[in-house]
Amino acid sequence: MKGFLIVLSGPSGAGKNSVMNAVFPTIPNLKYSISVTTRPPRVGEVDEVNYFFRSEEEFDRMLEEDLLLESATFVGYRYGTPKSFVHEQIQAGNAVIMDIDIQGAAQIREKMPEAVFVFLLPPTPEELSRRLKLRGSDSDEVIKRRLAKSYEEIKHIVDYDYYIVNDDLARAAEQLRQIIMSEWLRVSRIDMKRLQGLWEGGSSVEV
Amino acid sequence: MKGFLIVLSGPSGAGKNSVMNAVFPTIPNLKYSISVTTRPPRVGEVDEVNYFFRSEEEFDRMLEEDLLLESATFVGYRYGTPKSFVHEQIQAGNAVIMDIDIQGAAQIREKMPEAVFVFLLPPTPEELSRRLKLRGSDSDEVIKRRLAKSYEEIKHIVDYDYYIVNDDLARAAEQLRQIIMSEWLRVSRIDMKRLQGLWEGGSSVEV
Repeated sequence: MKGFLIVLSGPSGAGKNSVMNAVFPTIPNLKYSISVTTRPPRVGEVDEVNYFFRSEEEFDRMLEEDLLLESATFVGYRYGTPKSFVHEQIQAGNAVIMDIDIQGAAQIREKMPEAVFVFLLPPTPEELSRRLKLRGSDSDEVIKRRLAKSYEEIKHIVDYDYYIVNDDLARAAEQLRQIIMSEWLRVSRIDMKRLQGLWEGGSSVEV
Repeated sequence: MKGFLIVLSGPSGAGKNSVMNAVFPTIPNLKYSISVTTRPPRVGEVDEVNYFFRSEEEFDRMLEEDLLLESATFVGYRYGTPKSFVHEQIQAGNAVIMDIDIQGAAQIREKMPEAVFVFLLPPTPEELSRRLKLRGSDSDEVIKRRLAKSYEEIKHIVDYDYYIVNDDLARAAEQLRQIIMSEWLRVSRIDMKRLQGLWEGGSSVEV
C-alpha cells in the first residue's frame, strides 16, 4: 500500500517539533521529510540525514527542473522540499511528515492536493506568549510580533484538513497519531485489484 | 462543537456489532442510532431504547413527511432511521453510529453526504465462511449465498471513506476508534467565530 504526505503547520511556539517527536517512536513507517538547503552544515549535521546540503547552482537547477515541492529563502539561505525523497517514501509505503509555514503549505497544496494538512494550535494567545518567553530566544518586541502574526496565520486554518489544539503534549501527540493511523485506512489507498482478486474466489470457498 | 454520523457497512459476518460494542465504552460521546420499526417488540425490548416501535400508519406518515434518512422492508416489517434522533445527537455534540447494508448506506449518502462511511471487511472469504458456520444460524446453502453476495458488496467499498479489515477484533475496534477520534479533529467542525475571537485579542496580550 502506498503512503502519503502529512503537512504540519502552526504558529511558532505551537509545539510542532515536540508533537512530531512524540509521535515518531509510535509509528515505525512514519518518516521525516528531509529538506534541501544552501546553508552550510552546522557542527554535527550530516548530509542526507539532517538536510540535503547543496550549492546555489544545484538549488537553481532543482527549481528549474521542477524537482521541489516548495521553496523559500530565510536569512539569505534557500530551503526546499525535494519531490524525489517524498515520492520514494510514499512509494515504499511510508507516511512522510514535514513541518512548514503557511506559505510553504500553500505551495505543497498546489502540487500535492492529496496530502494531509494538519494545523497545530496553541491553546490561547496567553499560553503562546508564555511559551515563547520560556524559550528565551526572542525579545519582547519579537514575541509581540509573533503573537500578532499568529492571528493572521490562524485565519488560514480553513485550508487545512485537521486541527489539533496543543494544550497537553501527550494528548496532542495522540491526536496526530490518530489522524495518521486513520489516514492509512482511507479507501482511496486500497489496492482494489488485490481485494477483488481475493473475494472473486469467495463463491468457490468450500462451506 | 457539532458531532457527525458514522455509517458502518460490511458483509454479514464481518463483525460489525462486535467492533461497535468494543468501541462504545472507549468514546463517551458516541451514540448508537435508534431505528424505527413496524415489527412488534420482542421480550425485553424497550421502546426508544432498542427501537422506536411504530404502527404502519405512523411509518407511512414518517416516509411522506421525509422524516427518515433511509428505510427498507425485511421479512414483512419495515425499518428506518429517523432523522430527528440523528440530528439531535449531532447538535448535542455527539457522534452517532449505525450499521446498515449497502443499500441503506446509499440512501444516507444521498441525504447526508457529510457523514463518515466506513466499510468493515472480513480478512478472507475462507474466514468469513468459518465465522458464519460458527454462528450456526445459517444452512450451508445460505452461507454459500452470503459468500457470493459478499463479493458483490465489496465492490461498493469505493463509495466509502474508510475501510477496516477485521482480522483481529481488538485491532479493528482500535482502528474504528482512530477514525472516529480523528473525524472530531476535522477543520470543518471548528467553530471559526469562537477561534477568531480568541486570537483576535492576541496582539493585546501582555508580554
